[in-house]
Amino acid sequence: MGFLSPPRRFLFGPGPTQIEPRVYEAMAKPVVGYLDPFFFQVNEEVRAGLQQVFGTQNDFTLAISGTGSAGMETAVSNFVDPGTKFLVFSAGYFAERIAEMGRRHGATVIRFEKPWGDVFTEAEAREAIERERPQVAAFVHAETSTGALQPPQAISRPAHEAGALVIGDCVTSLGAAPIRVDESGIDMAFSCTQKGLSCPPGLSPFTVSPRAMERLQARKNPNRVWYLDLKLLSEYYGVQHRYHHTAPVSSFYALREGLAAILDEGVEKRFERHARVHAEFVRRVEAMGLRMHVATPSHRIPNLNTVCVPEGVDDALVRRALLADHGIEIAGGFGPLAGKIFRIGMMGPLATPAGLDQFFGAFEKCLVTASAPAVRM
Amino acid sequence: MGFLSPPRRFLFGPGPTQIEPRVYEAMAKPVVGYLDPFFFQVNEEVRAGLQQVFGTQNDFTLAISGTGSAGMETAVSNFVDPGTKFLVFSAGYFAERIAEMGRRHGATVIRFEKPWGDVFTEAEAREAIERERPQVAAFVHAETSTGALQPPQAISRPAHEAGALVIGDCVTSLGAAPIRVDESGIDMAFSCTQKGLSCPPGLSPFTVSPRAMERLQARKNPNRVWYLDLKLLSEYYGVQHRYHHTAPVSSFYALREGLAAILDEGVEKRFERHARVHAEFVRRVEAMGLRMHVATPSHRIPNLNTVCVPEGVDDALVRRALLADHGIEIAGGFGPLAGKIFRIGMMGPLATPAGLDQFFGAFEKCLVTASAPAVRM
Repeated sequence: MGFLSPPRRFLFGPGPTQIEPRVYEAMAKPVVGYLDPFFFQVNEEVRAGLQQVFGTQNDFTLAISGTGSAGMETAVSNFVDPGTKFLVFSAGYFAERIAEMGRRHGATVIRFEKPWGDVFTEAEAREAIERERPQVAAFVHAETSTGALQPPQAISRPAHEAGALVIGDCVTSLGAAPIRVDESGIDMAFSCTQKGLSCPPGLSPFTVSPRAMERLQARKNPNRVWYLDLKLLSEYYGVQHRYHHTAPVSSFYALREGLAAILDEGVEKRFERHARVHAEFVRRVEAMGLRMHVATPSHRIPNLNTVCVPEGVDDALVRRALLADHGIEIAGGFGPLAGKIFRIGMMGPLATPAGLDQFFGAFEKCLVTASAPAVRM
Repeated sequence: MGFLSPPRRFLFGPGPTQIEPRVYEAMAKPVVGYLDPFFFQVNEEVRAGLQQVFGTQNDFTLAISGTGSAGMETAVSNFVDPGTKFLVFSAGYFAERIAEMGRRHGATVIRFEKPWGDVFTEAEAREAIERERPQVAAFVHAETSTGALQPPQAISRPAHEAGALVIGDCVTSLGAAPIRVDESGIDMAFSCTQKGLSCPPGLSPFTVSPRAMERLQARKNPNRVWYLDLKLLSEYYGVQHRYHHTAPVSSFYALREGLAAILDEGVEKRFERHARVHAEFVRRVEAMGLRMHVATPSHRIPNLNTVCVPEGVDDALVRRALLADHGIEIAGGFGPLAGKIFRIGMMGPLATPAGLDQFFGAFEKCLVTASAPAVRM
């Protein structure tokens, strides 16, 4: 087969995104055993770093050995049982995925639906929660399929008043935008490593509030999914170090190193950098006469921009030209937004003035090439 | 936090085991997107390599985005439903784990139990299968907790005669010992990357027979576990490339490179190398007056040796001295074998005459140090 020789890509999509160089170095370091004291030291560093980026003091903060979707399945399978009343605030693809997982685990799923790109107000959420009285509510903090950023308290406040636990999908926000889990009132938050944390995919950062831990400990029957059972995982990563599965050591090295790079920069400074780059991105996009898909500026994900595809432009042609001629990956829309938006991530090492210049230099060129003749004139 | 600086370990345990140097290099190579044509090219190379080491022509051969235990959960969750009659041949810890997963998924689990370290004969298996008439039967090919190697046909032949599908746990054998899935009659085989394949943990190689694919396609209700749903995974890794989850790209690079190293050596030659090193290991262990836990030579896993702890020796002291003074990791026994066996892997880059010398040089020294004075004389 010869040696592996990947092309050099600039990952301006929703993820995986550009990786911090020292993370690559960490992955090439020697693996130790899953019960080695050094591994648990790394795990404690991962826990401490994740608490910082999540904005939480939750003791139960760890990384699940699977991708972001495994984190979603962990949240649903540990807290949603057959018959659980499960209210999902849905305005995009990933909320639909949460609802689908809930159905598969036998929950009574109620979807509160809004158009893709919208967010929910506290009044809307309260009305739905008081009507439905769910045991668990779920929302997507940064909806990767639409670019919309949901204010967490709008959902968690009324949910807690009604005694419901709150699942928050933080896959796209963690590490690039503030989540402030404790203030936000999210009881189970999950994320991924390959977006705001600038690591390769493979782990799912996860944090559980003390309130949710009580609910977990009170479970009578075990989680159906042994691999994602948080009780078993807490015995492995906790003081007992009771064997559960063989943790993916190199992925933990990567995550530890990505978090170290973030703490070196400073968590708040990193959020500000992403916010600045986002503001400049929007300014430049609008200067080109293009429109952002999410109308209200405060409802936009700072590290994932959704831009409306201009009339007469074939978005697939633009994406293909960016990849083939510039080595740049961005993503298109799907579902109701297929062909209608570009999804452009400005994250981690690419969320810089130089990253903006590189992206717009290529994007403007490819837009012209892919435009219909009438528009090109 | 500073830079990550792991200690240098020699992994002579059951796993993770020593990693092929070119695998570390592959992980440090630039990540591409999960829909990038290059990623799917890597995936095709992974499929082709896995077919070789599994010994199968199964078209449905892929890597699950989780560790070996995620592979086990994939096998159970896709083929065992509430009410499924599920016969587990149990003579060790990992068979018990399969049974536990079956119970959690609502199956009617019947355990056919033998002492830890035993294997099942075809007559025993036939008798149990004809009595119980299970829809699915499961066994562990290489039982990591005991060192015993189960002949697959002893179970698959009577199981197929009774119309049952066969799950085979190949976590410890894949890449170091022949499995020959097609000849062996295993319908769903799963494994891991960190043992016989000499890669870091993180993926679970998986293969499904055409017979089992028919059963999968005929499922009426979907797998409860969305993340491990083989139907959805087949649409992502198949020609449609329909998005499911973000594959852990760097782990795929690692697996691809580990498989490339194996194919460069030659699959059969690699099996022979492990068999030779195993024979020499047993010879040297017996020359020391020690005893192998599995009595019958043909029932021993060639790449994972279980050695009885001699009278008067504290196995934990030996393991601690090996790690602290020699950087060598081996494992002890657990469950009914706690304190009774050492589990010593001779795999991949360490399965060489030099690896044997290194191991025995340190082991003999630590055994003496950890022996009670009466024995030491």
